Amino acid sequence: MGEEIIVVGCGASGGTAAQFARKTSRNANVTVFEKSKYPQYSKCALPYLISGKISGPEKLIEFSVEWFNRAKIKLFLNSTVTGIDDKKVYVKKNSEVIVKEYDKLVIATGARSAVPPIKNILDKNGELKKGVFTLRTVDDAIKIINYIGDRKRNALIVGGGLIGLEVAEAFYSRKLNVTVVEMLPNILPSMIDEDMSRELYDQLSGYIDIFTNHMVLDVEGDDKVESVRVKNNGNGEEFKLPVDVLVISTGIKPDVDLARSIGCKIGEKGGIVVNRRCETSVENVYAVGDCTEGRDFVTGGSFPVGLGSIGVRQGIVAGVNAAGGDMELFDGFLQTRTTRLFDVEIAAVGPVSAVLDDDVVSGKFRGSTHPEYYPGGSQVVVKVLCNKFDKRIVGAQVIGKNAAQRINTMACALLHKMGVDDFIKLETAYAPPIAPTIDPLAAACEVANMKLRRRN
Amino acid sequence: MGEEIIVVGCGASGGTAAQFARKTSRNANVTVFEKSKYPQYSKCALPYLISGKISGPEKLIEFSVEWFNRAKIKLFLNSTVTGIDDKKVYVKKNSEVIVKEYDKLVIATGARSAVPPIKNILDKNGELKKGVFTLRTVDDAIKIINYIGDRKRNALIVGGGLIGLEVAEAFYSRKLNVTVVEMLPNILPSMIDEDMSRELYDQLSGYIDIFTNHMVLDVEGDDKVESVRVKNNGNGEEFKLPVDVLVISTGIKPDVDLARSIGCKIGEKGGIVVNRRCETSVENVYAVGDCTEGRDFVTGGSFPVGLGSIGVRQGIVAGVNAAGGDMELFDGFLQTRTTRLFDVEIAAVGPVSAVLDDDVVSGKFRGSTHPEYYPGGSQVVVKVLCNKFDKRIVGAQVIGKNAAQRINTMACALLHKMGVDDFIKLETAYAPPIAPTIDPLAAACEVANMKLRRRN
Repeated sequence: MGEEIIVVGCGASGGTAAQFARKTSRNANVTVFEKSKYPQYSKCALPYLISGKISGPEKLIEFSVEWFNRAKIKLFLNSTVTGIDDKKVYVKKNSEVIVKEYDKLVIATGARSAVPPIKNILDKNGELKKGVFTLRTVDDAIKIINYIGDRKRNALIVGGGLIGLEVAEAFYSRKLNVTVVEMLPNILPSMIDEDMSRELYDQLSGYIDIFTNHMVLDVEGDDKVESVRVKNNGNGEEFKLPVDVLVISTGIKPDVDLARSIGCKIGEKGGIVVNRRCETSVENVYAVGDCTEGRDFVTGGSFPVGLGSIGVRQGIVAGVNAAGGDMELFDGFLQTRTTRLFDVEIAAVGPVSAVLDDDVVSGKFRGSTHPEYYPGGSQVVVKVLCNKFDKRIVGAQVIGKNAAQRINTMACALLHKMGVDDFIKLETAYAPPIAPTIDPLAAACEVANMKLRRRN
Repeated sequence: MGEEIIVVGCGASGGTAAQFARKTSRNANVTVFEKSKYPQYSKCALPYLISGKISGPEKLIEFSVEWFNRAKIKLFLNSTVTGIDDKKVYVKKNSEVIVKEYDKLVIATGARSAVPPIKNILDKNGELKKGVFTLRTVDDAIKIINYIGDRKRNALIVGGGLIGLEVAEAFYSRKLNVTVVEMLPNILPSMIDEDMSRELYDQLSGYIDIFTNHMVLDVEGDDKVESVRVKNNGNGEEFKLPVDVLVISTGIKPDVDLARSIGCKIGEKGGIVVNRRCETSVENVYAVGDCTEGRDFVTGGSFPVGLGSIGVRQGIVAGVNAAGGDMELFDGFLQTRTTRLFDVEIAAVGPVSAVLDDDVVSGKFRGSTHPEYYPGGSQVVVKVLCNKFDKRIVGAQVIGKNAAQRINTMACALLHKMGVDDFIKLETAYAPPIAPTIDPLAAACEVANMKLRRRN
């Protein structure tokens, strides 16, 4: 008889944990309980479902029920784990209650959207007012699509982060007038520095209206949203915007009720605390994905995990370990992240300057994908952050073609604590139709390096 | 009075050495002697001059005479260094002889094309027969362009390496019938493995004829090339091909006469031996670029430097050191390389399997640029080579979109001796319109890792 491994939640990290448990042990019994009716699908793709780029919800499924069957993983959909007790999970599936014992438990309960305290955002029943949405699930996306129909005109997004701007683009492609309101002075504030954000702002503001350093005070309309009152944080001025559909995109709140109920330690960011093996503070219980909090590789500080790339890697590690393997994540997360907005690719790794201390020096370079002499190059802007004492790279931000692939190289450099002075010696691939001899990444490192030399 | 730094040769590595000497010391006198009439230009771009993608020779210039003037670097064109003696260089510039003392000398004399012993390839004067060319300089490219004119029809390239195939593409875009003859069983033999080469072969053979495992025996035609006799190395069969223009692209021969004359050690590959500071065996004499030989980071073996990316980095290091700075290259070269052929991007880092020993295991993955659910992805094929004992990555090859940027990440991983088991934990950038959660690079590493796990 194999060990009983139970995974709670079939999002990207839970599903991955189940898969890698199966890969690691052929004898283990792997069971997944998922509260929704969907098997593992991509949450990050929801904005592209709204835009129509992805044609329907069924396309989002990454691993189907049949796939799980073939892999001999028992997947229960519409199955909510209501309690855990004495190494048993209690599951409600329709009117039925399933009780199942586990040897190892993987909690992958995800997160909910955080809703900021905006006046009148809720109706009398404490639900989001009609026309106000959050976006976490396929069902959320379908509700939004149905609500917009062909008649809605004015969309407003609260929050100028990654998802907020992706939804803004999706609405734009559905021919809505789109406004984004961001409380902080710049868009993508947890991804790129203010100067880099301005580069992007200029490119996006041809398509959508963006109010940074503004906040939504009040949602107006009786039975549904009709307008909002917005305040300029700088000068205090207030104004009204007509709004047919409002999407809240101001971050997530980890779903930790189950974990807390069995005594798992919850961290300062509200997520389940896990070690490098994805073990919680409770024996035989792992946790992965958006319900956990991570440790930043550079600062050592905690952050709520909200990236699929991290969740999937946690899933791999938890799955392998739950099935008797031995795998450990690196000592902190790099938080590599990317998006494409109106054909502009943006990518970053490591913390932004604002959360780093004064020991950091930056190098910024505006270069081209191609050598100057070769036609067809396009602009790439790179900013590199490094520690001013040991020169090691602690962050990088790229706007331009292939930003994501470029940032992967910086992620590898950051992980290995490579210095900006060493980076310029890294042989990057060079060919006239592809890249210059000194890549823009290296050129930005050299700018930082020169600053440091001048200091000494 | 500043030190006298003399650079012999204004190719990419010599020019870079001069620039970084200037950057490092404001007081140094930096002088460059270049035998041709051109200031620093891109040799790698010559195929694109032939194709017409780059409109004229003047466009190839990366740093103009005016640029060198502004940088206060004395650049002498049409100036051949004929001898070096007692810390003096003797330079012939037209009918004039310049004698100049140096404190530090940087030799950047480059290389010539190697010409294989093909019967009747030379005319009675020992020159290449009319219609037969090598491609090393702008003047070579101009000669080829002029010779082709509008009337030549059949082009043959000897050598299916990087430059040979780039020239093949250039000829194709000039509407010639193009044949490539490669002696070894696969194209790009020093860049990618045989299986990867086949992937590429299939994509190129729609445009050009490629005979691998064949050799050119004889160049036929009285005063100019009219046909060649080709032999199949496999079955010994011979056949004749009509040829109007023939380009030899079978490697380079380092130009080391000057260096040898002053006692610089010449290595087994015929290049000047330099250490990590780009110092030759003679005090105060540095050497950079194609006249040197390098040490492979993985195998430790010597190879003739033929890559601009290496030459430029040697130039930086030699320039900095010659001017009193202190800089050292890594302990060996990664040989990161890339090209684009008929819109297929290919990139590689580290040695190919054929030159590695049996201690290597490979992982190959055929993936997509995008997650499966997102439309518009294109195929990416990745092969990773790793040491079977410590799992460290020793080579990688990519065919597909953004191959070069992908290989840069692998170059960074290879440099840091990262294991395939660790690579899968590296957080690569993920977003539906850009890349899957597990990048094809990581997937290939996981394939290798699984093979290794099964062995144990």
